[in-house]
Amino acid sequence: MIKTVHGGDVYRHPGVIDFSSNMNPLGTPERVIREAQESMTEICHYPDVRQEQLIRALSAYEKVPEEYLFCGNGAAEVIFAYAWALQPKQALILAPTFAEYEQALKSTGCAVRLYALRESDGYRLTRDFTEAITEDLDVAVLCNPNNPTGIPVDPELMREVIRTCRSRGVRLFVDECFQDFCDNPERLTVRGYLEEEPEIFILKAFTKRYAMAGLRLGYGMTSDADLLSRMRSAVQPWNVSIPAQKAGTAALHEEEYVEKARAVVRRERTYLKRSLKELGFQVFDSCANYIFFKGEEGLSEKLLPYGIMIRDCSNYHNLGNGYYRVAVRLHPDNERLIEALGMTRRMIERRDTETSDKRF
Amino acid sequence: MIKTVHGGDVYRHPGVIDFSSNMNPLGTPERVIREAQESMTEICHYPDVRQEQLIRALSAYEKVPEEYLFCGNGAAEVIFAYAWALQPKQALILAPTFAEYEQALKSTGCAVRLYALRESDGYRLTRDFTEAITEDLDVAVLCNPNNPTGIPVDPELMREVIRTCRSRGVRLFVDECFQDFCDNPERLTVRGYLEEEPEIFILKAFTKRYAMAGLRLGYGMTSDADLLSRMRSAVQPWNVSIPAQKAGTAALHEEEYVEKARAVVRRERTYLKRSLKELGFQVFDSCANYIFFKGEEGLSEKLLPYGIMIRDCSNYHNLGNGYYRVAVRLHPDNERLIEALGMTRRMIERRDTETSDKRF
Repeated sequence: MIKTVHGGDVYRHPGVIDFSSNMNPLGTPERVIREAQESMTEICHYPDVRQEQLIRALSAYEKVPEEYLFCGNGAAEVIFAYAWALQPKQALILAPTFAEYEQALKSTGCAVRLYALRESDGYRLTRDFTEAITEDLDVAVLCNPNNPTGIPVDPELMREVIRTCRSRGVRLFVDECFQDFCDNPERLTVRGYLEEEPEIFILKAFTKRYAMAGLRLGYGMTSDADLLSRMRSAVQPWNVSIPAQKAGTAALHEEEYVEKARAVVRRERTYLKRSLKELGFQVFDSCANYIFFKGEEGLSEKLLPYGIMIRDCSNYHNLGNGYYRVAVRLHPDNERLIEALGMTRRMIERRDTETSDKRF
Repeated sequence: MIKTVHGGDVYRHPGVIDFSSNMNPLGTPERVIREAQESMTEICHYPDVRQEQLIRALSAYEKVPEEYLFCGNGAAEVIFAYAWALQPKQALILAPTFAEYEQALKSTGCAVRLYALRESDGYRLTRDFTEAITEDLDVAVLCNPNNPTGIPVDPELMREVIRTCRSRGVRLFVDECFQDFCDNPERLTVRGYLEEEPEIFILKAFTKRYAMAGLRLGYGMTSDADLLSRMRSAVQPWNVSIPAQKAGTAALHEEEYVEKARAVVRRERTYLKRSLKELGFQVFDSCANYIFFKGEEGLSEKLLPYGIMIRDCSNYHNLGNGYYRVAVRLHPDNERLIEALGMTRRMIERRDTETSDKRF
């Protein structure tokens, strides 16, 4: 009954280093914490139902008209509002991908068809995805870069997906929450298509970019005014709290911080990929602030005694035991992860040696 | 497209004394503000999806099992989650009453039938309401005390409503958000029926009780485990933010503060009712922390130049121009309201005199 399908459950594991949720490794910006704290003296008022300051700041930040924006109590609420507003009958989602698309779609009674990404392709989206976009679909969902793999969609293929969706009358929902940590976000985003393609909806979050998951703030962008109107009717008018509106508005000025985080992630991603490969794990080619890899079963449990929590990916569609996702954190934490993984590896090797010793 | 049907819009009227939303007149407790502020250093984590501390504290506070509770991003989210989970076809609501029941129900495609309260009854619920609970209904919604009138349902009549709902297979949704400010909340609540009547759902809010509307925290209670499970599936797992969970848990210890607020509201409600009557307004018999009255048209606009915002109730069903709701605030504010109302009255009298002078 209680949902525990996600990472980030530090409440049942106090004191661990959390590699299971994918935050900005620099932590929450000082300015964001301060703004949220100062706003607490105003909470006897309702939040602004028009979210004026936040929407104005977001419009300037994303360079889209204010009318294209919908803010939610975290990106997850935006997914649910989209599903309730659209009430689609048939959707196409990737396997594996973030679990909430399916949760939200199924809760509205939508049938969900899975498109299986292939390990032999390194979980990269391939051209045949466009063939899976059939006319009976109401919506196709892409996560770019994908979660948990960190693999981006090739921009050329994305163009073809958009063309296919348009010609077959299928909406396209693109989750771009993790693009901020890629080296070339401007090359990946479909934001430039919004004006001419009202069928496109982009999901973005403050959660990861500014490490403020606990405050809840996400948003969506589309030029489909009717859909936005229906989304607003599907949620309460006060869905974004005062501290989230204030902190979010302040966060959008933190451009240097995001730039710095991107540089840290780039360096540490390289370090982690190399180190994981050296330990013998199969590492996939993530461009995000988390890394997806394959190893022996039961690694998550083995790492907990070392005070380290990673994301076991066995409950994703199309993945089995032995798949893991780790967040890219600051170097000392990443070193501890690699050390702990090294120790679990050596224990396995020792056991294997002992077992083979006994055989002789 | 933007919802502005409610009171409390201090953002378009900065600096006014807000009588249009109904908060605890003592303001947010210090402890609640402090807890929320301190929790800001933890917002790099996701909120606890199980809401363990909050649910445990709430269970002790309400004296109901933990399994009966559902927490939301404000009481308004609980209303929407209830509507999405139930997907009722036909509902009965009061006219006038709080607008969000209809908003939420209609957004799921539910047909809404109105039960018109009568001015001749002082907007009090009468026995013939039970006849309106017909078998074709999925749910009947009561707000007790009602909003905007502040009129409670007689406990004997409530028992009869519950019996009728049970015998006709109709669910009963009771909003008890404003009971905390009545003199005898224990006499009004239907909480005692929860165990034996799984068809009852009670809505409660932290918003008003602790003046924390901007932080968003509300909850629902029912013994219908299946409904609660569906409600959990209809919303995201992280719907209650970290500051709301922390502040809410702390707030539940503020029993003296609530007791003190109830005493202040009792005294000031009496003062406001008497003063409004002395000014010639028709005042209805509210038991809540707000007062519903009738006067001339356009009072809200006339009060704004005095720095006072009240709730114009003309957009409620079954009310027209000239109906108003004012929150019970601290005495100096209440005096300013009465003074300002007095001045608008004198201006009307003077104009009337001038007009009648001119006639001769």
